[in-house]
Order: sequence, then C-alpha cells, then structure tokens
Amino acid sequence: MPPRKLQVGVAGLGRMGKRHALNFHQNVPRATLVAVSSPDVAERQWATENLAPHGVAVYENYADMIAHQGLDAICVASATAVHAEQANAAIAAGKHVLCEKPLGTTVEVSQSVVDAAAARPHLKVMCGFSRRFDSSYRDAYQKMQSGLIGRPSVLRSQTCDVLDPSGFFVAYAQFSGGIFVDCSIHDIDLALWFFGEDSKVRSVHAVGITAVEPDLRQYNDRDNAVGVVEFYDGRIAYLYASRMMAAGQEDSTEIIGTKGKLTVNIVPTDNHVRIYEPGGIRHELPQNYWGRFRAAFTTEAIEFTDCVLEDKPVPVNLTTAVTAVRIGAALQQSMITGHKISFDKNGDQLQMARL
Amino acid sequence: MPPRKLQVGVAGLGRMGKRHALNFHQNVPRATLVAVSSPDVAERQWATENLAPHGVAVYENYADMIAHQGLDAICVASATAVHAEQANAAIAAGKHVLCEKPLGTTVEVSQSVVDAAAARPHLKVMCGFSRRFDSSYRDAYQKMQSGLIGRPSVLRSQTCDVLDPSGFFVAYAQFSGGIFVDCSIHDIDLALWFFGEDSKVRSVHAVGITAVEPDLRQYNDRDNAVGVVEFYDGRIAYLYASRMMAAGQEDSTEIIGTKGKLTVNIVPTDNHVRIYEPGGIRHELPQNYWGRFRAAFTTEAIEFTDCVLEDKPVPVNLTTAVTAVRIGAALQQSMITGHKISFDKNGDQLQMARL
Amino acid sequence: MPPRKLQVGVAGLGRMGKRHALNFHQNVPRATLVAVSSPDVAERQWATENLAPHGVAVYENYADMIAHQGLDAICVASATAVHAEQANAAIAAGKHVLCEKPLGTTVEVSQSVVDAAAARPHLKVMCGFSRRFDSSYRDAYQKMQSGLIGRPSVLRSQTCDVLDPSGFFVAYAQFSGGIFVDCSIHDIDLALWFFGEDSKVRSVHAVGITAVEPDLRQYNDRDNAVGVVEFYDGRIAYLYASRMMAAGQEDSTEIIGTKGKLTVNIVPTDNHVRIYEPGGIRHELPQNYWGRFRAAFTTEAIEFTDCVLEDKPVPVNLTTAVTAVRIGAALQQSMITGHKISFDKNGDQLQMARL
Amino acid sequence: MPPRKLQVGVAGLGRMGKRHALNFHQNVPRATLVAVSSPDVAERQWATENLAPHGVAVYENYADMIAHQGLDAICVASATAVHAEQANAAIAAGKHVLCEKPLGTTVEVSQSVVDAAAARPHLKVMCGFSRRFDSSYRDAYQKMQSGLIGRPSVLRSQTCDVLDPSGFFVAYAQFSGGIFVDCSIHDIDLALWFFGEDSKVRSVHAVGITAVEPDLRQYNDRDNAVGVVEFYDGRIAYLYASRMMAAGQEDSTEIIGTKGKLTVNIVPTDNHVRIYEPGGIRHELPQNYWGRFRAAFTTEAIEFTDCVLEDKPVPVNLTTAVTAVRIGAALQQSMITGHKISFDKNGDQLQMARL
Repeated sequence: MPPRKLQVGVAGLGRMGKRHALNFHQNVPRATLVAVSSPDVAERQWATENLAPHGVAVYENYADMIAHQGLDAICVASATAVHAEQANAAIAAGKHVLCEKPLGTTVEVSQSVVDAAAARPHLKVMCGFSRRFDSSYRDAYQKMQSGLIGRPSVLRSQTCDVLDPSGFFVAYAQFSGGIFVDCSIHDIDLALWFFGEDSKVRSVHAVGITAVEPDLRQYNDRDNAVGVVEFYDGRIAYLYASRMMAAGQEDSTEIIGTKGKLTVNIVPTDNHVRIYEPGGIRHELPQNYWGRFRAAFTTEAIEFTDCVLEDKPVPVNLTTAVTAVRIGAALQQSMITGHKISFDKNGDQLQMARL
Repeated sequence: MPPRKLQVGVAGLGRMGKRHALNFHQNVPRATLVAVSSPDVAERQWATENLAPHGVAVYENYADMIAHQGLDAICVASATAVHAEQANAAIAAGKHVLCEKPLGTTVEVSQSVVDAAAARPHLKVMCGFSRRFDSSYRDAYQKMQSGLIGRPSVLRSQTCDVLDPSGFFVAYAQFSGGIFVDCSIHDIDLALWFFGEDSKVRSVHAVGITAVEPDLRQYNDRDNAVGVVEFYDGRIAYLYASRMMAAGQEDSTEIIGTKGKLTVNIVPTDNHVRIYEPGGIRHELPQNYWGRFRAAFTTEAIEFTDCVLEDKPVPVNLTTAVTAVRIGAALQQSMITGHKISFDKNGDQLQMARL
Repeated sequence: MPPRKLQVGVAGLGRMGKRHALNFHQNVPRATLVAVSSPDVAERQWATENLAPHGVAVYENYADMIAHQGLDAICVASATAVHAEQANAAIAAGKHVLCEKPLGTTVEVSQSVVDAAAARPHLKVMCGFSRRFDSSYRDAYQKMQSGLIGRPSVLRSQTCDVLDPSGFFVAYAQFSGGIFVDCSIHDIDLALWFFGEDSKVRSVHAVGITAVEPDLRQYNDRDNAVGVVEFYDGRIAYLYASRMMAAGQEDSTEIIGTKGKLTVNIVPTDNHVRIYEPGGIRHELPQNYWGRFRAAFTTEAIEFTDCVLEDKPVPVNLTTAVTAVRIGAALQQSMITGHKISFDKNGDQLQMARL
Repeated sequence: MPPRKLQVGVAGLGRMGKRHALNFHQNVPRATLVAVSSPDVAERQWATENLAPHGVAVYENYADMIAHQGLDAICVASATAVHAEQANAAIAAGKHVLCEKPLGTTVEVSQSVVDAAAARPHLKVMCGFSRRFDSSYRDAYQKMQSGLIGRPSVLRSQTCDVLDPSGFFVAYAQFSGGIFVDCSIHDIDLALWFFGEDSKVRSVHAVGITAVEPDLRQYNDRDNAVGVVEFYDGRIAYLYASRMMAAGQEDSTEIIGTKGKLTVNIVPTDNHVRIYEPGGIRHELPQNYWGRFRAAFTTEAIEFTDCVLEDKPVPVNLTTAVTAVRIGAALQQSMITGHKISFDKNGDQLQMARL
C-alpha cells in the first residue's frame, strides 16, 4: 500500500496562487493537489485548463473548497486582505494551514490567526516566510549559530523589486499594507530569526520617497524606503525596500557580528553564466521574487507537508509573524508621520510629539 | 484515474546508484521507483532499509530486476565496466534505458549500445551527460545559439575533483578508462554540443602528471591532465582534468566566440553566502560532482521520463556518446604514449612515429 | 631651466602625517617636500632618520615651519583638534593649504577656515576628501553624470574599519568628534557630491551601539552606527560606520537611481589574487583606509599641487566641508539623544521633544 | 645637495615607447628623462610637443641619443626587430639597459644580449617582463613561496588582447615573432618564475586557428593559439593567447598546487565600479595591456632605477628571457608544422617525423 499523501487545496490563483498550486502539484511528492479556489473567472479558467485534467477540483467559493472531501490542508495564497479570514475559516474547519505572508496588514488581524490556531493546537498553522527555507539563508544561520561571527549585532537587509512600469503596484498599494508590511516584512522576519524571536524593539524610524511613482502617496505609500529598527539588547536592523530596481530582484542581507560578517546574495546572481561582450562582463539576475526563491518555496511546501504527516512542529513560529507585522506597521507609520516611534519593554508605543 | 507513471528500476547502488535511486524516488513526480539491483550485500542492505519500506523491490541479480513485473525503464548506474552490457540487456528485454556516462571505456563497447538501440527504435536510450541538463549550461547554449558571441571558436573546459586522500581513485582507475574517459568525457561532450555534434577531429594531444598519486601510473593513468582537441573546421577545445583540488569541485567552462565569450562557473560557488573573517572574504564550493549538478540530475530524470511517457526523442543523441569516448580514449592514448594523434576526415587515425 | 616645483610642508607626523609626507616626497613630481613639523619627539626622530637625509627640514613648532623660507603650501595632517587652527595660521601667513578632513569637529570651527580662506581668495585651500580622488568613485560619478542611472535617489555608503583590539579608538574618540564626524564624514561628502552640494537636509536620525567597546560611551561615542539623512528634494542617504570589521577595511557605496544603480567596492578587494584552499575560495582586503585609498591620496596631492602651480580652482569646494560637518554632528547628536532632528529649508534645526 | 638622479633615454616612441617615456618622466622620482629617439617624424613631433618643453632632448638617430652627455641608462622600447641590436649598442657604450620583451624573436638574437651583458658585468641589463612587477602576481608568488598551495604543478595562463578591427596586428605579425613569442612570452616567463627558472622543458605542442583574421597565415601566425609545455620535473604549463577578445584585456593566470590554487585576475576587472542596469550587473575591463599593467610598468622603472643607483642585481634574470624565447619559438614552430616537439635534458630538440 502506498503511503498516505497530504490532500492540499490552494486558495487564490493570482500570481502567487498559481505558483503555489503548481508547486504542490509538481514538486511535493508527499502531497497531492486536490482543489483550488478563486473568485476570478480568468484564474479559474487557467485552473480548468492546467490543473483540472490532473484531477484537481476547481472552486469559485473558498467555503466550497474547504468542504472538499478528504481535504487535509489549505495553502492561503490569495490577496493579503483576506489572508487572515481564510486562514481562520480553514482552522475552524479543522484544516492545516500554510498562509502566505503577511497574516494581515494590522497587528489585530494577524493576531486573530494566532488566536484561532491556539484554540486548535493539533493543527499545523504556518506563515510562509520563504527565506527561512532558502538554502543560503539557512547556511548563514547555521554558521552564525556555530559562532563563526561572534555576537550578531547589526543586520542590513533589503527587498527590492524590479520596476514594473505598468504602475501595477500603485493599485496594489491600496491593500498591501504599504512597502514595509509588504516587502520589508521579509527582512524584519530575518532580523527576528537571526537576533532571536524574543528580541524587544526599542525604536523604529523610517523615511521614504516616491522617486518613480508619486501616485503612491494617495495610499500613504512610497516606492523607496529606508527603516531603522533598534532593539533593547543593543542590536540594530536597518532595511531598504524599493520598487524601482533596473537589473533584477535584489534581495540582499548582511549579518554583522563582533567577530565576522555573513552576507547572503550581496551581489545578486541568477546562475553560473557570465557574458563577456563589448562594455564588459555581465551577469543576469532573477527578475522577480519567485525567480530568486523558487527552490525555497518548494522546500517550504515539502517541509510543511512533512510536519503535518509526521505531526512535527512547524519550523516557523506563528507568533513571530505577528511581531513582524507590528514592526512593519510601525515603520510604515513612522515613514508617513515623520516621527520616530519608541516602545517600552512591553512593546507598547511611547508617545512622541513634535513641538 | 491518476495518469500512468513510469515504472523505473536502478541498476547499481554505489555512490552514483544511490543518488539515482533517491532521485527517481523523490524528485520525479511522473516516475515510480519500483526496483533496484546490486551484487553488493552492503548496498542491498542500504536499499532494504531506505527503499524497501516505500515498496521498492531489491534484487541481487540484474537479470532478475529486468524481469520485474511492469518495469518500463532502467537507469544503469553501475560500474563503468558493465554499463554497456547492462544497457544492452535492458534494450533486449524491451526496456527504455538511461545509462550513466560513459557507455563504455572503448569505442567498440560503446558502439554496441548504439547498435542495440538502433535495432529497437521505439525504445528511448540516452546516455546521461548531466551538464546538458544544467540550467547554466543551457542558458549559455541558448545565448550562443542566439548569436551573442558570434562563431564559437575555442572552448576551454575542466572537470576537477576534490582530492580524495583515501587513494580510492587509484583502485578506481583500473576500470574507469582513465582520467580523460572518466572526467573529461563531460568536457568533450560540451565541445561536441557547443561546436556541433558532427564536428570532425583533426588531432588530439595530451600530457599528464602524477602530482599526488604516483601509483596511478601502474594503470596508465594520471591525476592531472591537459588535452587539446583540434577540429577540422578551425576550432579548438582544450581541457583540464584533475583529482587534487583543495577547495571543492571545479567544473568550469568558457566558450570563446568571434564576438564575445560565455563562461559557466568560472569561479565555482555553492550558494549565495559569503563569509567575512580575518584573512578575507570566503565562499564555499560544492565538494563533489553531485553537489554541483544535483538539480541537473533531477532535470535529466524528469526529462527522460517525459520522453518515454510522451514518446518524444531524447534530448541527447546517443551516437555523440560514442564520439565522446572516441576522443577521450585518443587523448588518454596520447597522454600515455607521448604522441600527438591525428585523424583523417573519416575519423581514422593517421600513423605517427617517433624517429 | 627645470620648471618650478611647489615647496610643501607637512604638519603632523602621526599615522596620517607620515603618509602625507612620504606621499609628497615620493609621488608628486611637481612638488618638493621641504619641511615637516611635529610636537612629538618620536615622530620627529622618524623624520630625522627618513626625511632629513633628503633635505627635508624637521621642526618642533608649527609656527617655525610656516616661516620656512620659500615654503608655498602646507598639508595639515595633525590631530583633528588642531586642523582649523593650523589651517588658519597657514592662510594668515599666505600659504596654500591642503587640510585633512574634517576641518573641525564643530560647524563653527570648520566655518572659521572657510572665512579665513574667503579673505585670501588667491590662496588654494582644500579639504582632503580622499574619495573624490579615487578612480572608482570618479568613474561612478562620471557614469551618473552621463545619465546612466537616471536621477540618483538613494545613496547607501559605509566607512568600516578593522577592529583594533588595542582599544586605541576609545582614547581617539575623545577628540575625533565621534564616529559620524570622523568616519561617516566621507560618506556624507559622497552624498553631497553625488546629490549636489546645494542639497538641503530635511532630517537626520541615527542610532548606535557599543558592540565591542562599551568604554566609548563615556565620550558619547559608539562603535557601530547607522544614520539616515533625508533631503528636501526627495532623496535619502543612509550610512553605516563601524569599528569592528573582521576581514578588512570595508568602504562601500551604492548610488541608486531611477534607471539603474552604481556600486563602488560592494565586495571589497585588495588585488587580483584569489586563494583556493580547503574551506573555499578567499580573497584578501585592504586592512586600513590608506590601503584602500593610497592611490587617491597621491592623486589628491598631485592635483592640489597642479591647482596651485597653475592657479586653477581646487576640485573640492571648501564650503562643502562645513556642510558635511554640520550633517555629521547632527547625526552624532541624534544618536546620543535618541531624537530625530529636523531642519527647515534654511538649515536651521527645528525643535523636537519627547513627551 | 639633492641626491643624484639617473639620466635616462628612451629608444622608440611608438605605442609602448611613449608610455615608457612618460612613465620615466612622471613616475620615477629618482630618474630624469633626458633624451628620446625615434626614426619616425610623427613620433618625434609628439616628443617635441610633449617632452622637449621639460628639457628632454629628441633624437632621430639612436646612435646620437646614446652619445647624449651624461646619459646613464637606456630603455629600449622600439620595434621587437631592433631590441637586441639597440640593447647591444647601449651595452657597448657602457649604458645600463631596460629592454622591452622579447629580447628578440629568435634564441640566437636574444642570446646575443646575454653575451653582451656578460662581457660588461657592472652594467644592469634587464628584460622588462612587466608582470613580475605587478602587485597581484607578486602577492601570488609570495603566497606560493610560503607553501600555501603545496608544490605548484600546473600553470594555466593566458594573454588575450581586445580585437583590433583595423587589422593592425596582421602587419605587426610580420615582425613580432608570432603570437607565442609576442603574447605568450609573458605566460612562459610566469611559468619559469613560478616553477623555477632552471625548469627543463620536455616537450611543447601547440595548435592555432585564424578565427577572425585569415591573412595572418601568410606570416605563419594565428589569432588564437593554445600551447602546452611539459617540464621534466612533472609539471605542466598550458597557455592560451588570443587577438579577439570582446570585453577587454584578459590576462589571467592560475597556479595549481598539490594543496591549493592561486589565481590572478581570473575574472578581469578594471576598478571597483559595478553597473546595475536592465540586462544585469556589469563591470568594465582594461582595454589593453597598459591599462592592466600600468602600475607594474611604474614599479619596473622605479626598481630598475634603484638597482642602477644602488648597484643591486636586477630582479629578473636576463638568461630567463632567452629561455622564454626558446620555448615561445618552439611553440610557434609546433603550431605551424603541426608537430609536437620534444627536448632532451640539455634542451636540444629531438627529431620527430610524420610517417
């Protein structure tokens, strides 16, 4: 008798939803993609053509997919605005959940998922911080843990997307929570991972500009932003996010310790090819986040599946996802108000005022 | 009804055999590993522990595995000395074959596989030149095809293994066909791929040394070797193979054209991590061939499976595998005799003599 | 008749003073080092042994050196605390001045040099921002000017020294003006150079830690610091300075524009050598600022000499040196007080308060 | 009294002659350029405009320059065809000589300089193998000497020029001695330096093509050539030279030892700038040999001057320059005849024949 496979459904079939669906379909031997859902007719059409022939049920309503017979787990890959709601409904129905980041754009909404999961401790609920599954980040983490760089003290990290001249990200900004919650959330999670998930924030400060897309201001967003996060134990994370890279996806990180430094992807590269031509030597970059982290998404899906099938704890602590949103939202607030925001050791904001 | 999966058996469970078995087991969604075989008791023990629980049959005799009910295809990953024999037996039994390189250590033996396959044209028979499935080599090939570097004229390529201080490779040399047939065969195949598989060799010349393992001389082998292959259409491939790298696996290639140059892995790297420490900035390398080409082996297995299931031609021409052995064996001969070897346009050796 | 050579004196023979003296002595064909001065007996001893045999006069008192017959110009390379005083005395005596950065640790002191120079417009007075003379920075600047990256919008720059375990930099902090005035001043100058020297600062904010040297706190300094400078025209510079690098001097800069990005020394390197050894591939770094910018110091001295001899304007505007100190001192203040500091468009600080 | 300066004359004012003249004029504090000579009217015109105003005498006849009063040393930077003749005349006149490589295109001509120098042992006579003065090569040599890579066993080195579409190098090939004597001579000298100058050649073999300039065949030359040199003590040097690089000057070397490897300029770079733009990340290369080795030429001139003024042995053994020509000429012969050439331990060619 062949071993049991995890029956997985994917909610949302947008850019990321399609990728998650194909990922579970093609790359996770212990999982079977059995259902997908999307309110969008074109997205369902894609699924009908590409997934249905392989026995995948296609639903319009998320609630109907939850009710799919035999379904074990749901990957929530829909719009950020419904992440928490869909995750909570899945948990309520007794399904394991892998939820795309962020859980929500506010602390309250994000916390609701933690609360729901806490009420059903036998379920595996994980927020998909993809970089935690990237082999380079894991190698760096392990080297840091081994003491190679002494005490990690300063972390610089950036999430920088290629310029999309269509202006897509302006409309997107309306619901994304802003550049710090949408992009820098990854870097914030890295800081919490490398510095320790119980690190207490002392202050945040951020500035932003609209270098290429002034229309972002109507949604209180920016296209380039720099943020600084100060922790109570004498550590600093400083972050950069951008929507206007020319060469490709530039997600780089450096972890600076008292005895050394580790960098991840400091000069972004896509593969081992170098091109020598008039003008010099050139190499190409991944053109988007998926291009850089495709293998990490596969590892994420495989490990989530393993955790469910073998009843092991998921590798990323769910409460960290709330902490990350808390920091991201504070950075966004600092950027928009122009105020530095300080916290006491309980995590409560101290009042600041401009005279 | 789920789609049909290819039932695969793997012959040989040594270093490469284990990898191929796990690869088909874990990474090829459209294939099912159903059987393995090995004459070695320890290897079978490993399979009994790791594969049998997943429903994989473990055979001592290769002939018995061929007879496994429902078996569609065999991956020959045994010792080079039996590659051809096992491939031919599989073909005779009507099985599709993915055979590890080289087909054999001599032209005659290698040709026997081509002949066997020619007699059963409905079977898919492929020699596993793994670099053909590596995304960087494919990217380079595509860029060359697009005209980016003009006419490719000179190819430099090397296959360099980490020093194995156990001396394993001395015993191994007895049956490997020598460093040019065992290692440089990959670089020779790249030359044939990038220059055109009908390229005609004009001359070969090679020299070698035993820098770390003089005992290799008893088997007419060397631990470092340089070879030059001259083609009739005014192109040159020059090759280096070594068994004594300190830092890691160093398989690098450059393709020099009249208008530009492409390199693959010119500075070998394993991942995106860089380590800053007293002494400088450092990065690690894959420590063996599998570490460098793991993903390529997966692609190779997936594409072979697809070709069988969809009855498409395999991506690597089987006759090229014989041409590669012909060149590799001539280089080995040149290295041992000290003679340059020339060929006429029919591929026949011209006589050379030392006065 | 050989052409006239500039008669140069160097004030100060500490670490930098020795380098400047040798630089003028050996590498500037149109200048002759004729005098040096230092109040320190060991430093003078060094000069007596190394420079006096070549006809260089060695003075204890700076005033005496100024009076050296035929002296045309003075390179002020003494302690930061006396830069301005010595520069002003030289100007008063009608000497051209090349002054090490910073002019002073406060705006007022720095401004005094500008005022003194303004009163003697025929004299060449330049603050030695060495990076302006580095061929890589100049190449980047020229490429930016040519439009290659569109509008430069975000600049990241760092000045990071190797850890000096002797604790020298604690004592040094007493007089250096702090890490932003001592180290980041270079990065601030780069921001003013690349963004335009009339850029108006809107706000500064900084945080710092003492990761390796808590004693720095007694002098209101830190060993790692991150600062963010916001400009009124929608540009951001963000800076990092450190005293604890393990691998070497790490002075890196990136200039991010709306259409591309330029980096300078993003992965620091010393030369063209790469070392392959167990553990990977390694390269060495310059171990101090001079190691990285030696050639720039030579170019600086040569161009300063040319400007005097040919009566051309010096390439670095003196008032920029005051602006850089203004920004650096504000960053230092922000780091120590924990307050973000905002400026109106006239450059006056707006009041901030913590409730 | 200022210390004595070396009075230097430069013979030849072509591409390299101009550079050597300016180098001695601007960058060598202990030397004074006092004279130059060239039979070419345009070259002399250049000197009249650029050097004469600084007191440099300009001669049409080399013999007249030798007679220039007070002249101490001559830098021979004329056409290769007259290197030896001019060097010998200078030696006969009691002048120290820095001669551009190669001494001559044949062993006999080159040896004549060694013989002339041997007759005047008080004179300093050096062949300008510029890479010996490059800081990266020196760093690599020192690291090898320290034992970092064990016993150096294989050396790969290449000298590759940018394609000059003017076809200049066809005419040049008539007198250059061919690509191995003109370009690879540097790599051969490196092999002799790193392997030991008394290394005995066992065999050479070379092949070449005309990928871009078939007209080279009339002068028995090629535009791309690969050569292999086998030494009696179990070492191999393999070389590549090309006239058709697209990206820039590519002079790279790797020295492979039993315990590690050193590379010099394995990915050629010009400076610390990297350009991020659509298409990827790019860096520029030096566009010619001078661009790569400018600083080495300065060091060479400074050290030669020091050796004369201080009566120290020159750092490059003159006889090595003959050995290098011997090997280069044999490679050229092998490439043209198609024969491998073997030597006995006395350095005499063994006869080979093609049946």
